[in-house]
Amino acid sequence: MQIISSIEKLSQICSDWRRQGLAIGLVPTMGYLHRGHLSLVEAAVKDNDKVVMSIFVNPTQFGPNEDYQQYPRDLGADLKAASNAGVDIAFCPTEEEMYPQGFQNYVEPGPLTSFLCGKSRPGHFRGVCTVVLKLLNIVTPQNAYFGQKDYQQFVVLKQMVKDFNLPIVMHCMPIIRENDNLALSSRNIYLTAEQRQAAPKLFAALIEAEQMYANGERNAAVLEQRIKEIIGNYPDARIDYIAIADKNTLEPLTNVEQGAVIALAVWFGKTRLIDNFLLG
Amino acid sequence: MQIISSIEKLSQICSDWRRQGLAIGLVPTMGYLHRGHLSLVEAAVKDNDKVVMSIFVNPTQFGPNEDYQQYPRDLGADLKAASNAGVDIAFCPTEEEMYPQGFQNYVEPGPLTSFLCGKSRPGHFRGVCTVVLKLLNIVTPQNAYFGQKDYQQFVVLKQMVKDFNLPIVMHCMPIIRENDNLALSSRNIYLTAEQRQAAPKLFAALIEAEQMYANGERNAAVLEQRIKEIIGNYPDARIDYIAIADKNTLEPLTNVEQGAVIALAVWFGKTRLIDNFLLG
Repeated sequence: MQIISSIEKLSQICSDWRRQGLAIGLVPTMGYLHRGHLSLVEAAVKDNDKVVMSIFVNPTQFGPNEDYQQYPRDLGADLKAASNAGVDIAFCPTEEEMYPQGFQNYVEPGPLTSFLCGKSRPGHFRGVCTVVLKLLNIVTPQNAYFGQKDYQQFVVLKQMVKDFNLPIVMHCMPIIRENDNLALSSRNIYLTAEQRQAAPKLFAALIEAEQMYANGERNAAVLEQRIKEIIGNYPDARIDYIAIADKNTLEPLTNVEQGAVIALAVWFGKTRLIDNFLLG
Repeated sequence: MQIISSIEKLSQICSDWRRQGLAIGLVPTMGYLHRGHLSLVEAAVKDNDKVVMSIFVNPTQFGPNEDYQQYPRDLGADLKAASNAGVDIAFCPTEEEMYPQGFQNYVEPGPLTSFLCGKSRPGHFRGVCTVVLKLLNIVTPQNAYFGQKDYQQFVVLKQMVKDFNLPIVMHCMPIIRENDNLALSSRNIYLTAEQRQAAPKLFAALIEAEQMYANGERNAAVLEQRIKEIIGNYPDARIDYIAIADKNTLEPLTNVEQGAVIALAVWFGKTRLIDNFLLG
């Protein structure tokens, strides 16, 4: 595995690969890799001749009061895991390399970002779209891989790729979970032992709503109320949002139909966790 | 010459060309072609194996009170001129093809758009950047060609290409002028006979300022004042702006240095004309 921090060098190698007719898969990450990230690499290795993983904690997607400084980092472990998983190039640029002095163009995403996490994290998806657009242009992959855990991120990025006419297939890969069904996240290490024990309630609540739906319940408010009860039982949990939405437009639904997404974000102390479930 | 209106088809052809190792040049236009546009094609034909010209009056770069509906169009004449000039593909999409229902991502350009035309035309460069980004992604050219008449446009687009890491060389081609030195523009046909006769004063004023600079004048206010006098002589002319600015940052200068740009925009009745001159 090559470790590259220069945009120019990476761009050159990928351009050579393209000229040789090789298919490139891109797995963009912020590092602190877990099995969720590695499942994306596994898919990318299967589908492509070459796999590039970016490891970059992107400052522009963090709000001023968010955890950019504290975000967990362990480049040594990441490089080992990436190499073992079959990554061909780990791209680890500095902030200065990605956002040099004078940098001033951003992607301005649209209505899809007015729901769910976009509401709680203004500017977040502007930063996500901008950094992913840059990565897509540098690597020119045929395929790019994202986790369903960040479901809105996937929908927003897919729309950007469509609107900007990028010839890239966007892959949304299933959420990988701990044995007790907590969705894997780099932020899980922030949790206290007690919070960690309570966190699987997020998935339990989603599953119970899914069961109610399977049994015929179609009223979104009823399902949301039940989720609220289950999570609210734990005193240290503060609900940011619970939403039942159209899986394409992310607009809130009052009557739940097939293809809806149930998404939630919940604070455990200072740690914000998200999870979601696609119905039917 | 092929005439194509489908993004998918154009993207496919250009992708095949790239695979064959052919260099592609892109000349983005809004049609109503004049010798200025054709000089871009000439350069593109020289530098590349294949030349794509887009002909698309881009609605997103016009303000609500601007001349989108009235903008002159003559597709038949344009296709003839493009073909004669050596264009391989004329790309003439519909508005629906470029901005289908649900379209929602835009480029958000930065401080470079806060000066000159950006000040008078809020949202203009957001539309320009968005449509050019789309065209660059569809065509994947090695080279793209723009006229110096829209100098700020070139600087803004070049910064976008740099910020978004597009591997494209941006070419700024000299202004082409009528015999009396009026800069060619599709909008010149709006002018009444009297306005048309007065319009060369824009260039005359720029040249006089250049002469004063050559003779040692370094005070931007003095140069601007002289330009104002020359243009103001004509009662139907209303100055939008006269600016002497750093040619890279577009920031206004008080002391004029080598590499400054003198740029102006002037209304003749309902027609807004622009022109500029690079010093030294």
